[in-house]
Amino acid sequence: MGSVDIPSKQRAAVRKGTGESATAPVEQIDVKMPGPGQILVKVNWTGLCASDKSLIHDEWKDFGVAMKDVTCGIAGHEGAGVVVAVGEGSDKRWKVGDRAGIKWIASVCGECEFCLNGQDEVHCVNQTNSGFSAEGTFQEYVLAPSNYASKIPEGVLDEEAGPIMCGGVTAYTACKRSNVKPGQWIVLPGAGGGLGHFGVQYAKAMGMRVIAIDGGDAKRDLCKKLGAEHFIDYTTTKDIPAEVMKLTQYGAHGVLVTAATKEAYSTAASLLRPNGTVVVVGLPKDPTIIAGAPPIMMAMKRLNFVGSVVGSLKDVEDALDFTSRGLVHPILSKGKLEDLDSFMEKMSKGQLPGRAVLQVAA
Amino acid sequence: MGSVDIPSKQRAAVRKGTGESATAPVEQIDVKMPGPGQILVKVNWTGLCASDKSLIHDEWKDFGVAMKDVTCGIAGHEGAGVVVAVGEGSDKRWKVGDRAGIKWIASVCGECEFCLNGQDEVHCVNQTNSGFSAEGTFQEYVLAPSNYASKIPEGVLDEEAGPIMCGGVTAYTACKRSNVKPGQWIVLPGAGGGLGHFGVQYAKAMGMRVIAIDGGDAKRDLCKKLGAEHFIDYTTTKDIPAEVMKLTQYGAHGVLVTAATKEAYSTAASLLRPNGTVVVVGLPKDPTIIAGAPPIMMAMKRLNFVGSVVGSLKDVEDALDFTSRGLVHPILSKGKLEDLDSFMEKMSKGQLPGRAVLQVAA
Amino acid sequence: MGSVDIPSKQRAAVRKGTGESATAPVEQIDVKMPGPGQILVKVNWTGLCASDKSLIHDEWKDFGVAMKDVTCGIAGHEGAGVVVAVGEGSDKRWKVGDRAGIKWIASVCGECEFCLNGQDEVHCVNQTNSGFSAEGTFQEYVLAPSNYASKIPEGVLDEEAGPIMCGGVTAYTACKRSNVKPGQWIVLPGAGGGLGHFGVQYAKAMGMRVIAIDGGDAKRDLCKKLGAEHFIDYTTTKDIPAEVMKLTQYGAHGVLVTAATKEAYSTAASLLRPNGTVVVVGLPKDPTIIAGAPPIMMAMKRLNFVGSVVGSLKDVEDALDFTSRGLVHPILSKGKLEDLDSFMEKMSKGQLPGRAVLQVAA
Amino acid sequence: MGSVDIPSKQRAAVRKGTGESATAPVEQIDVKMPGPGQILVKVNWTGLCASDKSLIHDEWKDFGVAMKDVTCGIAGHEGAGVVVAVGEGSDKRWKVGDRAGIKWIASVCGECEFCLNGQDEVHCVNQTNSGFSAEGTFQEYVLAPSNYASKIPEGVLDEEAGPIMCGGVTAYTACKRSNVKPGQWIVLPGAGGGLGHFGVQYAKAMGMRVIAIDGGDAKRDLCKKLGAEHFIDYTTTKDIPAEVMKLTQYGAHGVLVTAATKEAYSTAASLLRPNGTVVVVGLPKDPTIIAGAPPIMMAMKRLNFVGSVVGSLKDVEDALDFTSRGLVHPILSKGKLEDLDSFMEKMSKGQLPGRAVLQVAA
Repeated sequence: MGSVDIPSKQRAAVRKGTGESATAPVEQIDVKMPGPGQILVKVNWTGLCASDKSLIHDEWKDFGVAMKDVTCGIAGHEGAGVVVAVGEGSDKRWKVGDRAGIKWIASVCGECEFCLNGQDEVHCVNQTNSGFSAEGTFQEYVLAPSNYASKIPEGVLDEEAGPIMCGGVTAYTACKRSNVKPGQWIVLPGAGGGLGHFGVQYAKAMGMRVIAIDGGDAKRDLCKKLGAEHFIDYTTTKDIPAEVMKLTQYGAHGVLVTAATKEAYSTAASLLRPNGTVVVVGLPKDPTIIAGAPPIMMAMKRLNFVGSVVGSLKDVEDALDFTSRGLVHPILSKGKLEDLDSFMEKMSKGQLPGRAVLQVAA
Repeated sequence: MGSVDIPSKQRAAVRKGTGESATAPVEQIDVKMPGPGQILVKVNWTGLCASDKSLIHDEWKDFGVAMKDVTCGIAGHEGAGVVVAVGEGSDKRWKVGDRAGIKWIASVCGECEFCLNGQDEVHCVNQTNSGFSAEGTFQEYVLAPSNYASKIPEGVLDEEAGPIMCGGVTAYTACKRSNVKPGQWIVLPGAGGGLGHFGVQYAKAMGMRVIAIDGGDAKRDLCKKLGAEHFIDYTTTKDIPAEVMKLTQYGAHGVLVTAATKEAYSTAASLLRPNGTVVVVGLPKDPTIIAGAPPIMMAMKRLNFVGSVVGSLKDVEDALDFTSRGLVHPILSKGKLEDLDSFMEKMSKGQLPGRAVLQVAA
Repeated sequence: MGSVDIPSKQRAAVRKGTGESATAPVEQIDVKMPGPGQILVKVNWTGLCASDKSLIHDEWKDFGVAMKDVTCGIAGHEGAGVVVAVGEGSDKRWKVGDRAGIKWIASVCGECEFCLNGQDEVHCVNQTNSGFSAEGTFQEYVLAPSNYASKIPEGVLDEEAGPIMCGGVTAYTACKRSNVKPGQWIVLPGAGGGLGHFGVQYAKAMGMRVIAIDGGDAKRDLCKKLGAEHFIDYTTTKDIPAEVMKLTQYGAHGVLVTAATKEAYSTAASLLRPNGTVVVVGLPKDPTIIAGAPPIMMAMKRLNFVGSVVGSLKDVEDALDFTSRGLVHPILSKGKLEDLDSFMEKMSKGQLPGRAVLQVAA
Repeated sequence: MGSVDIPSKQRAAVRKGTGESATAPVEQIDVKMPGPGQILVKVNWTGLCASDKSLIHDEWKDFGVAMKDVTCGIAGHEGAGVVVAVGEGSDKRWKVGDRAGIKWIASVCGECEFCLNGQDEVHCVNQTNSGFSAEGTFQEYVLAPSNYASKIPEGVLDEEAGPIMCGGVTAYTACKRSNVKPGQWIVLPGAGGGLGHFGVQYAKAMGMRVIAIDGGDAKRDLCKKLGAEHFIDYTTTKDIPAEVMKLTQYGAHGVLVTAATKEAYSTAASLLRPNGTVVVVGLPKDPTIIAGAPPIMMAMKRLNFVGSVVGSLKDVEDALDFTSRGLVHPILSKGKLEDLDSFMEKMSKGQLPGRAVLQVAA
């Protein structure tokens, strides 16, 4: 194990207040040293995910689903940097100097049914989550369980790695869940957004034919550049299902809903051919929105609605590999840790193209 | 081709009037002889399905899904009997005297994408449907395309065959669609009904562990006798999801919704463990009912909602085989063709246990 | 139905003699008109497949597998051209002037278990085969069952269509059978050959990472150009399994054996990681060659050996679609129908790069 | 943590000598106390597996596959008993008094690709194996990693648990690997043996139709009692493939080869229908035996040969659950630890029906 100078104090964005008006100003706090099985990671860059904002601003308190009380004041779950200390009994794959990534799932128990099921550990009943039930990546030095942090491969920049381990892997597993085969059609409502622009790239790299839906010429250019075969501008197209039918004859084989809107969910089923699949990934705040369709339509066309959320440790490794091979790259809006509050405001207004990332360590 | 005496006239229940007040009294009509590729089947027994009633009474006119105008006045799509004439150029598997079954899908084109997909012919874009776009089984002699009628194997009675080719195969394919493995849990809301009591038996024969939901002691006894491991009485159980969790620890692996009610669909997702699957088969009349769940629940638990409807020609063959081997038998409420109107009335009132069947040919 | 001048006589390459010395000189024979359900196709180009040579020269008489007596003297099963007549009762999708393709499976019964299984019709127990139990494409005008001929889409040349409907679809379905996912490794022994060069392109288009094995710099250049990430030259590489391990860490996820050699089959298993799959497509003449591995190796590494042969009607449609979209193109060695015997000789000597095609109609 | 008297010395069967003449007499050795993450299990019963004999007698030294040097003198990998001490940092699911099972895979690393793949940990590149690279169950007190020992559920006896965790789970996962669906045919050569008699029961419980192959009336009675629908006596049946064809029309959907013989492997493919699957589980000593078929047969019938070995931690839990529910029970030949050598001799002579188990702790 190598040796690195670790300061005793660090900069961290710590949550103040509650609800809509909560903020996360940067202050000085102690650096903690790794316990057994932990590594300490110096965070070079962290992503700022819409869920960080949702958690800091208590936007999900109406949902009981897997949302426990926030137990720490430091959010952030898309961190990438370098290992500076390795605790006793840690996984042998880590040594000081290795590049490491921190993601939404911080740790899993390895004992519950879902851990044992294999790649089902995203449902671990004892998991901890970065920036939620475990301290997050909006600080310079973060602790991570050595058996669940991710290796960052060559060819992936620190500022890219965070978003890939969250939005990237979410889009990647969603593409897999769609069951759309090479040469078949997938439609992405919200294709030009943070999740969607990953989806277009992964779908393309997996051999699917992509129909992107978004609004405006900038989004059209972006989606086409990323690999979409067709673009449907929802601001100028009156009957989107008809347009999809025209392009695909019987409807698409899959729809990946990355837009978190009522419209996206209410029209998704009508874009599908029989046996088609809607993948549910965009998470609207409005609790009355239902992902689904009338039973007679679901049954007669034998449609599928399937949920997808982040991915397993192996999925993250695979998602990073696509970037390492040059096939998938995030669009980034860059800032510094001190920009956190202003970035959350811009995010609310839709002013941050692609994924937001903040430089953390000096 | 053998030779059998075929009368020129026959008894048939022909629809009169429209809407709720439509009736289907028996009258004398001509017997038609088979054209090229057709067989003529003498119908010994026909099932009376809830959809026959829905079609006769125009109950589905609000749904656009696959519902064209009824083009014939003779409903019925669960017929079983014997081949009395074989048209030119028919499939070689038929000869006079063979037992044959007529079902919802009367014919498929064999040319469209879905016919070519394999076992996807239920989505044939050119299909005809018995008792709807083709004359149905509420008559003594019915014509059927030789390449899509079903062989009835030994060990299956005529009065059983009709219901198996409709409700039976629907339950069978729904069990397959659930993706529940031997030793895993499946919950059946509406387990004691016409579809449900088939579902319990097929699920059991496929090695699943069955939790039946229905109301009353008679249903309890029936479900237990058919193979349910547990029974939840919805008339006396306050918190059904809690009861399912108690029995299964994390929730069931699958839910097969055979009850066509708002309650069944709104609670289905809450009975599932992560990665679980709701199979949508019960078809409510109320168009505001949605089979699905809030996106955050769908995503976080990676749930699946999948539609299922009848089955392919091969599925029907397989479904019949379970009865032939003594594993699955329908509960029958028996009458005669002349009882059609009174049976539809009883059906509305829930007074017909299991599946209704009518004796047709004398 | 349109109208086209159809001559009463045509040129056809008819087999003379038996065994190794059999030939197929061109002569004048009658043109037959389509019966019910048949179309007549004017063959512009036909592929010359290695199996045509094997059939003409009786090379497979030692194998009982699906090899009945040759019942016609006209071989050829990779034909592409235009419909010149449509028989009564034919599929509505055909009209005079449509482009049509004739392939190995000439007709299927639509009634047997395998036809009903869906996309399993390649095992139809009553199938006829072009150039074998049905007259083949080594003639100007060939009859074809209207329900099993293939549509040729825009963007696919006649001379390409034949090879795609045989070697192309074989490679395409083999890639699917490999179960190798986007981003995973597939190895192709014989990558530069007639089957292999299709395999490289389909695997690439499906997102797989391709390791090509073949001999010599010309093959290296070809494979790299077609999309191979790595090339292993068997003429200069001593330990091929070691080389594959070096590139893939634990071995490849799949091996697609297109080379019909003892070496290819005896080393295939050693190129795999645990759970990997060998797809068996190359067909050696030597009956002592076994595709498989010792049970202890098969079990301990949980390996899979799976056979693959041509593809279903839908597979053919999909395989053609990749060419239509510009992703897969055959390398062609072109001649005329009169070159058949000399081309078979060149084929024996390995002097025909890619796939051989013969121009048929003037 | 509770408290239990643990003696300092114990009885253990320690290997003496090498090769065919090696023995394993019982002697007194020290009891070791659990280190971090370990539990100490008092072994009430242990299975004696054919592989224990193979390892003790150096029978597998000719195979390089996953066979490292035996590093301990105590074999045995089918142990069941009770936890008597729990080391620091162990999984929370263990406390003193719990029933625990020890199996072939003693520990996995949790870090390698195969551990991360999910239920693929049987290929863990850093695994240790009980009775091989870790001390085995032929002793009264055995150490086990707390995160890979198995819980033994109610309804499973100690003497049953060992064999289920080895032969049982092997048969169970092999049935799953066969991909045979409820109502389809599976053939088991060696059905009356140690592995086979488990296979018959699991296949039956999974809804398959079982054709058992073995020799003699005692085996016939056993197989029928365990759930076989048909029995083929290889001592009196001349043409086994013909008999299987007669029963199944086109051949079986799956063959599970539990017999470790050349005959079983050379005829397996001929028992299958197109698309059928041979599961390779029986492990012959003869290194010239190949599990597979000629490429032309593999390809034309699209056959599958798949290896299967033990199962994951979750598979073991599932396999035990079938016994807990009364569906699967091993036939046992019982002895005491001191009978080890004599039991190995009887095993060689085929004199131990079902699975051999030895009582260990007094």
